[in-house]
Amino acid sequence: MITVIRGARIVTQDASRRIIEGDVVVKDERIISAGPVFKGSADTEIDASGDIVMPGLINTHTHVAMSVMKGMADDLRFPDFLDRVFAIDRDRTDNDIAIGTKLGCAEMIRSGTTTFVDLYYSEDVIAKATEEAGIRGILCWCVLDEQFTTQKGNPLDNCRRFCGSHKKMRKSRPGVGLQGVYVCSEDTCKGAKRLSDELKVPLHFHLSETRSEVNEHKRKTGRRPAEWLNDIGVLSERSIAAHSAWLTMNEVRTMGKTGMSIASCPVSNMKLATGGVAPIPELTENSVNVSLGTDGSTTNNSLDMFSEMKILGLLQKSSRWDASVTNAQTLLDIATVNGAGAIGMGKDLGSIEPGKYADIIILDGKAPNLRPLLPENTISNIVYSANALNVKTVICQGDIVMKDRKIKTLNERKVIDASEGVQRVLRGNI
Amino acid sequence: MITVIRGARIVTQDASRRIIEGDVVVKDERIISAGPVFKGSADTEIDASGDIVMPGLINTHTHVAMSVMKGMADDLRFPDFLDRVFAIDRDRTDNDIAIGTKLGCAEMIRSGTTTFVDLYYSEDVIAKATEEAGIRGILCWCVLDEQFTTQKGNPLDNCRRFCGSHKKMRKSRPGVGLQGVYVCSEDTCKGAKRLSDELKVPLHFHLSETRSEVNEHKRKTGRRPAEWLNDIGVLSERSIAAHSAWLTMNEVRTMGKTGMSIASCPVSNMKLATGGVAPIPELTENSVNVSLGTDGSTTNNSLDMFSEMKILGLLQKSSRWDASVTNAQTLLDIATVNGAGAIGMGKDLGSIEPGKYADIIILDGKAPNLRPLLPENTISNIVYSANALNVKTVICQGDIVMKDRKIKTLNERKVIDASEGVQRVLRGNI
Repeated sequence: MITVIRGARIVTQDASRRIIEGDVVVKDERIISAGPVFKGSADTEIDASGDIVMPGLINTHTHVAMSVMKGMADDLRFPDFLDRVFAIDRDRTDNDIAIGTKLGCAEMIRSGTTTFVDLYYSEDVIAKATEEAGIRGILCWCVLDEQFTTQKGNPLDNCRRFCGSHKKMRKSRPGVGLQGVYVCSEDTCKGAKRLSDELKVPLHFHLSETRSEVNEHKRKTGRRPAEWLNDIGVLSERSIAAHSAWLTMNEVRTMGKTGMSIASCPVSNMKLATGGVAPIPELTENSVNVSLGTDGSTTNNSLDMFSEMKILGLLQKSSRWDASVTNAQTLLDIATVNGAGAIGMGKDLGSIEPGKYADIIILDGKAPNLRPLLPENTISNIVYSANALNVKTVICQGDIVMKDRKIKTLNERKVIDASEGVQRVLRGNI
Repeated sequence: MITVIRGARIVTQDASRRIIEGDVVVKDERIISAGPVFKGSADTEIDASGDIVMPGLINTHTHVAMSVMKGMADDLRFPDFLDRVFAIDRDRTDNDIAIGTKLGCAEMIRSGTTTFVDLYYSEDVIAKATEEAGIRGILCWCVLDEQFTTQKGNPLDNCRRFCGSHKKMRKSRPGVGLQGVYVCSEDTCKGAKRLSDELKVPLHFHLSETRSEVNEHKRKTGRRPAEWLNDIGVLSERSIAAHSAWLTMNEVRTMGKTGMSIASCPVSNMKLATGGVAPIPELTENSVNVSLGTDGSTTNNSLDMFSEMKILGLLQKSSRWDASVTNAQTLLDIATVNGAGAIGMGKDLGSIEPGKYADIIILDGKAPNLRPLLPENTISNIVYSANALNVKTVICQGDIVMKDRKIKTLNERKVIDASEGVQRVLRGNI
């Protein structure tokens, strides 16, 4: 099965960050050629002349099933926000989680995201819906102390069972989640880390999102969360720490030594007004791999990674009074190659190169907001001028999941209509 | 000529901020009914069932002709940025200004902006292109001291001539511009103010965008810019001060007493890392009318007012560590009714009510990023979840300028293609 994308401006994101004109050829699940004009015959031909062809974006922190909760917890101070979300979230059914997941996947497909890292319970339900949508979830079942959870049974056992039964998904992969040090004892954290090592899957957790979370942990243990997690042996190259907004330089250096990644969530941090700003330049200088997440739909309220890239840059520049930090290329790297590295898939994802999975998106080069479009401003236009809905075609692991803005995998209308009823029920909880 | 929009969810932005279900009826240029089911016959019928119908957005600070300069001055520290932009901007032709304006108008139409306030020279060229595009420019010819300008002749005379010859545009209106206190003497400022009073048109200027601009003015005059402008009698209810990011509380109170407006430009301020944040709650409490602008395409690099609304909220919340400031309704007001007030058109624009100009946009309610969509989260979804390209139909002063994402007024393809050549020439200047 051969698919060829013809006449494209290809933003490869390869090691030399080349932008080349030519064809991309996909055989089954993988890219076999990028650049040279393809003279063979293909099963599917896509004309991308004048368009931008680039790697699918990688969202490394979200809670996809919360997409049905848009606009239910806005403009609230943090304690009020938490009360509201816990009230909404405590009593969900498999059906509404499936609808939320499909709605979120439809949003992600339309906005050019082909891989997302999820942190939630009921990841079995989320896995089924995600596979149906045709994109890739790194699905991290949330582990926390039993006294804090609404999960039935022991969360670590639930996670182990999910990972065991979901080893063989076609695109998605299981992972281990940890809610955060505020609801996870040392034993719980160590248990999750052991499981992640045993299965060789990512360990994804919230870290230092709010100042009070940091202060309370320090009062309890004498150490800040990142230091404490390092001391008990939880941090490794498999760790992805969402937020990481309240860090000291000592924590940054400690984190760098472990080979771990963070998932910065600037929109969520700004909207919740949690005050902290992830120190992206220092993290990068100290070898922490920086990736990017939208967080869930109660805090953002969007899964739009184009907007997230731009806002990450705006927040870094403005908070540091330095317009030169996190330039356009750095921001695009964060949303592509760094995301692939965070989930341990650097060899398979993040760029358009022969041998990699065909996770490719095509942006409409005829859109006025992307023009003028020259080689010199292509990266800048993607990061600072593009709009997520400039994405017209999406390929994930060789499958065309959206073509010319029509989603091929889901009955989008049915999902959207069902989402309304779900939110009405959830509103009954508040 | 009757146009009816049927079955809509109408975000009226009327005095009680009602959201109603029903029809909107337009007769010639104005709305004659909003809500009641229309039983008569119409020349044009638009089915908006399931969609959001809302007022066109009002962008109160931009330099539309700079749309051809996207991605030419990114990630630079402020002095380097200024050098770059002055180099690009010093030698423009009428043709490239016309192309830039049409490109910018196409971007604005596609993203739901029906009125914009422009600050530039050659506003006669911009006026012609804007009228062709079919949206409304409040076109403020930029006045500054002769020694700082590349304009031929005296800028104030040029402005007077433009305003005189462009009184009778169908949608657009002339205005008086002032570059800013850093290049405008007391006489220049007073001359511009007199002209604005004489013609009863807006006086639009940059104010306190950077800290150094404020400090230098204080060193030179002993007073901060807003105080100084007030002392020399320039501020009035016709003033629209872009940026206003470095203000003292004394300046805020002074500004409030004049009945003036500001145009906050959060994306531009953040991207240029100029440090200041417009104190929106204090401005509002002190009766300064707060509106919103994207600034030009060298600083943003987009004319997307949906994104600007959200980012205004994010910046206010995050910089003040208070998630409750500038809530969703306030942000939507800033981009609609407050914008109308800023340009002295509060009676004609900013809401969907009988008697007002039909400046109406329709958002695709079938888009997954806008759903679930209930009365309770409609405003939140517009502000925090919408994407500018959710806009599918745009009406300005009764004319359908875009229908189902097809722009009716401009040859968009021709404009877009021409924009490439323009940027190539401009790149020759740097």
